[in-house]
Amino acid sequence: MLKTMSEPDKKEITPEEAPENGKGIRNSGNASETGNRKTKGDFDLAAVYVSDAQYNRNIFFDTTPQAIRLYLLYNHWGLQILVYAFILVDLALAIFEDPAVVPLPIWVTSVIELVCLAAFTARLVHYAKVIPRERFWKDPKNICIFAIILLSLVDMIIYGALKASGFYAVRWSRVLRPLLLVNITEGRQLRRAFRSIRNALPQILYVFLLFMFSVLMFSLMALKLFGKRGLKTIEGRPYFTNYLEIVFDLYVLVTTANSPDIMMPAYNFSVYFAVFFITYILINTYIFMSVFLAVVYNNYKKYLKEEVRKLVRAKRHKMVRAFGVLQERKGEEEPVVSQACWNQLVRLVQPDISNAHRELLWSVSDDNNKGCIGKVAFVQLADLLNIQVIMMKSRPHPLKTWLPSLYLSSPSRLVCRMVQHKAFMYTYDLIILVNAVFIGLDEEDPLIANVEWAFLVLYLLEILLKLYSFEPRAFFSRHQFWNWFDTIIVITALIAMIINSALKLSGGYTSRQILDIVFILRILRLIRVVDNIKRFRAIINTLIKIGPTILTFGQLIVVVYYIFAMVGMELFKGKIRFFEANSTDPDKAFCGNPLLKNSVFAKHNYCKNNFNNVVSSFILLLELTVVNQWHVLSSGFTAVTHISARMFFVLFHIVVVIIIINIFIAFVLEAFFVEYTVDQSNLQSSLEKKIEELELGVKQEKLDGNLVDAMETNDNDMGNSESTKEKPALMFKIACKRYKTVDGLLQRMFEADLDPEDFAEDEDFDPNNPSNLNFPNPNFDSV
Amino acid sequence: MLKTMSEPDKKEITPEEAPENGKGIRNSGNASETGNRKTKGDFDLAAVYVSDAQYNRNIFFDTTPQAIRLYLLYNHWGLQILVYAFILVDLALAIFEDPAVVPLPIWVTSVIELVCLAAFTARLVHYAKVIPRERFWKDPKNICIFAIILLSLVDMIIYGALKASGFYAVRWSRVLRPLLLVNITEGRQLRRAFRSIRNALPQILYVFLLFMFSVLMFSLMALKLFGKRGLKTIEGRPYFTNYLEIVFDLYVLVTTANSPDIMMPAYNFSVYFAVFFITYILINTYIFMSVFLAVVYNNYKKYLKEEVRKLVRAKRHKMVRAFGVLQERKGEEEPVVSQACWNQLVRLVQPDISNAHRELLWSVSDDNNKGCIGKVAFVQLADLLNIQVIMMKSRPHPLKTWLPSLYLSSPSRLVCRMVQHKAFMYTYDLIILVNAVFIGLDEEDPLIANVEWAFLVLYLLEILLKLYSFEPRAFFSRHQFWNWFDTIIVITALIAMIINSALKLSGGYTSRQILDIVFILRILRLIRVVDNIKRFRAIINTLIKIGPTILTFGQLIVVVYYIFAMVGMELFKGKIRFFEANSTDPDKAFCGNPLLKNSVFAKHNYCKNNFNNVVSSFILLLELTVVNQWHVLSSGFTAVTHISARMFFVLFHIVVVIIIINIFIAFVLEAFFVEYTVDQSNLQSSLEKKIEELELGVKQEKLDGNLVDAMETNDNDMGNSESTKEKPALMFKIACKRYKTVDGLLQRMFEADLDPEDFAEDEDFDPNNPSNLNFPNPNFDSV
Repeated sequence: MLKTMSEPDKKEITPEEAPENGKGIRNSGNASETGNRKTKGDFDLAAVYVSDAQYNRNIFFDTTPQAIRLYLLYNHWGLQILVYAFILVDLALAIFEDPAVVPLPIWVTSVIELVCLAAFTARLVHYAKVIPRERFWKDPKNICIFAIILLSLVDMIIYGALKASGFYAVRWSRVLRPLLLVNITEGRQLRRAFRSIRNALPQILYVFLLFMFSVLMFSLMALKLFGKRGLKTIEGRPYFTNYLEIVFDLYVLVTTANSPDIMMPAYNFSVYFAVFFITYILINTYIFMSVFLAVVYNNYKKYLKEEVRKLVRAKRHKMVRAFGVLQERKGEEEPVVSQACWNQLVRLVQPDISNAHRELLWSVSDDNNKGCIGKVAFVQLADLLNIQVIMMKSRPHPLKTWLPSLYLSSPSRLVCRMVQHKAFMYTYDLIILVNAVFIGLDEEDPLIANVEWAFLVLYLLEILLKLYSFEPRAFFSRHQFWNWFDTIIVITALIAMIINSALKLSGGYTSRQILDIVFILRILRLIRVVDNIKRFRAIINTLIKIGPTILTFGQLIVVVYYIFAMVGMELFKGKIRFFEANSTDPDKAFCGNPLLKNSVFAKHNYCKNNFNNVVSSFILLLELTVVNQWHVLSSGFTAVTHISARMFFVLFHIVVVIIIINIFIAFVLEAFFVEYTVDQSNLQSSLEKKIEELELGVKQEKLDGNLVDAMETNDNDMGNSESTKEKPALMFKIACKRYKTVDGLLQRMFEADLDPEDFAEDEDFDPNNPSNLNFPNPNFDSV
Repeated sequence: MLKTMSEPDKKEITPEEAPENGKGIRNSGNASETGNRKTKGDFDLAAVYVSDAQYNRNIFFDTTPQAIRLYLLYNHWGLQILVYAFILVDLALAIFEDPAVVPLPIWVTSVIELVCLAAFTARLVHYAKVIPRERFWKDPKNICIFAIILLSLVDMIIYGALKASGFYAVRWSRVLRPLLLVNITEGRQLRRAFRSIRNALPQILYVFLLFMFSVLMFSLMALKLFGKRGLKTIEGRPYFTNYLEIVFDLYVLVTTANSPDIMMPAYNFSVYFAVFFITYILINTYIFMSVFLAVVYNNYKKYLKEEVRKLVRAKRHKMVRAFGVLQERKGEEEPVVSQACWNQLVRLVQPDISNAHRELLWSVSDDNNKGCIGKVAFVQLADLLNIQVIMMKSRPHPLKTWLPSLYLSSPSRLVCRMVQHKAFMYTYDLIILVNAVFIGLDEEDPLIANVEWAFLVLYLLEILLKLYSFEPRAFFSRHQFWNWFDTIIVITALIAMIINSALKLSGGYTSRQILDIVFILRILRLIRVVDNIKRFRAIINTLIKIGPTILTFGQLIVVVYYIFAMVGMELFKGKIRFFEANSTDPDKAFCGNPLLKNSVFAKHNYCKNNFNNVVSSFILLLELTVVNQWHVLSSGFTAVTHISARMFFVLFHIVVVIIIINIFIAFVLEAFFVEYTVDQSNLQSSLEKKIEELELGVKQEKLDGNLVDAMETNDNDMGNSESTKEKPALMFKIACKRYKTVDGLLQRMFEADLDPEDFAEDEDFDPNNPSNLNFPNPNFDSV
């Protein structure tokens, strides 16, 4: 067995090989011709290809050893985190810039922004060194970053100059900042979401135009039907007399925010007029909004499928290249890769892989035990590495090793059996429910406060008992979400309660914040009940699984919110002010702006919903996303500025509610359907079959539930049954529906629909035929 | 060629054949053994099978000639319409019963209801005569109808007795009425929708429980976080102090109806509390509501697929039976059906089919011109008949026949060419837009009123010109939706304007109603612009296509609304009263109920939203479906009754918004995806190929748009080009995406997903083998 290569080794490439490596594929061709001598550089190159295939990176890097080293550095997790950190700092500057939550002098924020821009420039230069020059300028992503950096600098200079000479100045380049999040980072999912929106736009536009036509027609009808009847709204304003006002009111009705108020004057006048509004709601709210969802969903799906197909094809090509670099040709036979080569490669790609896991993967690839694998089997490697295999070492309990006589004594065994019994779980479910009732009671009663301590002790006891009867390392293994959850909640609650009591005893002072935390922790503890019911667990697991992708949409929302917040702050900052509850300022009644006197906005006490800093802005935008009362919120801002400010709010509604929320729903729907319908991929089942063949598997039926159940059973077996066959010390289990990358999930989502040819081996690739060498690394546009 | 058989012929079946026909299949077996003698009864039986297959009727009828005659009568469209009419009358009784819109004496409504019940009983008895006795009582649908009729009678008697003796009585059986709509009629789609809801219920329940658990947890947290802080709502009530109130408020927040008001007190206190509400909205409003849609959608799809699969299988079996009845066996060859038999059958099934159409269908079935078809080809018949083939006779213009010299003169030709030119269309689009502006202007200006006459004349001229240049029968053919639309609108507008002017001239009196109609018609005319833009037309066509199925959901909504309206009327009638605008009653300020003094309900002027009659109830329920302000509406009714009345409104929200609206969205999504993705079925393409082969086709590319375009081109060809080949006088076109029945659309929706075996010929069916004869007619449960 070869030893895992350490990082420094990689750099020991002899200089005379470097010129040969001018083109990676050509080099691989040479290698296969010159026989089986594989250099360190070859392995590095192959490892980069495999790693790129595994994580679906699509960067066309130079294949000189130096460029590869730079490329490895570029992909280093440390640098990537650093870039994210700089972007975060850059975005967070909005907190400190005018209008600020925490004001800082301009020079401080400017210096920080300059540092960030310098970091982004450095990253861009690094990228330029990795890929060939001509490719660098072809990628709109790079041009976009370059332009943003340049524009930011220009804006900073103009702003500084204007401010210094006392003029009014706007930091307009701040709206560009979130685009860095889209373009600089490895946020492929984010870029893809933007691209799919861009691609769906034409179709959405046509439906939107038709929808607007319908709104305009209905508005005209409303003007003619109600305009002359002299009806009044509830505020006493004339009802439906101004065409533009009607259009806005009916647009708001589509969002249902002013239903049924907008209808009441007409309905009170005559019951027949209800027909007008019912027809309107039916057509525009129900049918058109469903059509928007359908169009967005359909385009999103279609486009995503196309991209995933490209990704799969690109992955194959990268793996074929890696194969080309490492292949050995024995005479006229098909080229193959030996196990030694393969082992070295896997160790380079994934240094933390265990030997057992690696051997398992090899035995799946080399199904016939030939000691070498062909191209078809080799290409699977990237997918195989992406399948999460959970290793379960059935280690004895530490106490069994240290104090065997005590741990194996019959009272100890009784305790273990008790803990592992279903009744133990049900008892604790009951305790949790009783606890819920006590939480609901008044906590200022000293009796109830003391009962809380009793519950805390009971929960601690539960954890200790479980640690006693289960192997602690298995109990706290990486996939034991609920065990971790329980332990952290209970221990934090313990600490918080102790601090709270200490504070109380020391000065009779109770910190409200700590009490709040204690309450929240107590209630979070109740969630555990849900996990014990199988049906609920299934739903929650699905939700947890689609969690990472929901985060992508979180980024998307942040980008859009940030842009709208920046624009909104420039337009509306300081126009509406909030006064604390104990303030006696007479302006409090109209949010500090006389224009809002007697307005609905002020009456609803919405003064804190303003654009006076980035945090308020985000909360306000969220309220606008929820839609309800958005017309009242927007009415406040139009009152203090101009009626055209409505455009801002309508645009926000169109962008966020009609497009982005629909994409979100589309994704949740799609992810759920996958969970319901798609089974394991072929590769997974072959891996599973192999695990079974080798008798290394944990019985599947026991694993349908959560992992603790399965381990309970195993431990029971170890302790009680006289097994005729020695159990292997190591067991494998495929975390069958968990994917390391979001791309993996997406790929699975569309695997069923993909043409089989996309998965077929790319037979026409021949490393010795230079005409095929120019197959480009697929290039994905930026937004 | 055989003559189409007339209805009376069918009854001339000789009595000695009747006993033989005890079982249809056995009879078919006999027929094939005794050779080619086919009796009238055989054809009738086969025609019934084919017709059942065509319309997916699944009734296991007796196969005696008498039962078949009864069965034909049972399926007669006249009787079906009569049943619908009786159901309508029965449902409409709610308008006349207390609380009534138009009060009628109890004895009148009772007599009408008795007549309706008698009609339903007659229908049920008729059905019982058609199908075997033992099957009748196995079908829950029949038992359900029987129970409803019985319960209604009991209720009427009790109600009458109680009323007569002066007691308070409730007509509780009225909630059962809409179930008749579900069970009696041929509303297969409606029953299916109910069944798919019933099947999805368990899954929805689990998600709902988890969702409620989440709401309860958050409520507990809210109680602990906000309860002790002494915050006040905007109305001055204590904020978040009562657990049940919190649960209700947070449930309302899920529907977004009280956002952001419910958050404002906490947000005004501290910005950190916004996190609580944001988390809540994210989890419960966005994620859980999407999950509900996903679960409903997924179950709906899954179940529908299963049902359609059953339907397809049942259709095959019915067609195989029809084949069994009509087959001829020549020696050892495969059994076949001759063209003569087939012709007679098709004429019986579809008496209005044209000879040309029938011959076209035959030539598709008998691809090799053998004069007879086997089982595989025969089974297609039901699907072939369901493909709508539009026949287009290229008839010359009547004027061309009557006044050829004038019609073919060069000025006349110029007019025709002009009308057929694109510019003509654009001119009229422009006229419509100018018209729109004029409509928006003040119509009391006499100039503008006169301009309207000019526009009307222009529109009339357009129609006349088109009638002059296009063949009138083609212009007004069945599929020319927009031509019909235009003509009806313009002529109605003309009549209304003439009446209006006449009224004005006669007494200076203007009827507001007629003016309203005139306005609406004028604005509807503007819609025509949309049809001229290809992209819009595509969207509208899709909407029109899914229209019939939206009607199914309309029925579903009516059933649910009716039940809730009946219950609501019993609970809340007369509690809230509406006063006309000019009323001076002091009770007006609080809707006639002192309990509503200073309530939000009365302040919003919602008094007309009440359960005082069935029309108000339906409008109120629609407002509740739109969700916005539903908590305010419900608060009014809880104020005048009891806090527990909230249950009614929450239940309505769960049933209608969470379940039914989601099914509606699911259907629209699915229908749109089908329109986007699925192409023609195989059968359609083979039919189309045949049409092309026979050179009877209208060029496809010309037909992508609307049919008028295509005919313009044809007419041009006829008039101007010297065609070398004589054009056939008759042309066919497949109305490719239009389905006669909703089932057809559904079948197409899932065709792609269905196993091919479901479409494969049912090879194991052998009419001579009695063991296979007992294959049951598939039985679909009632709700």
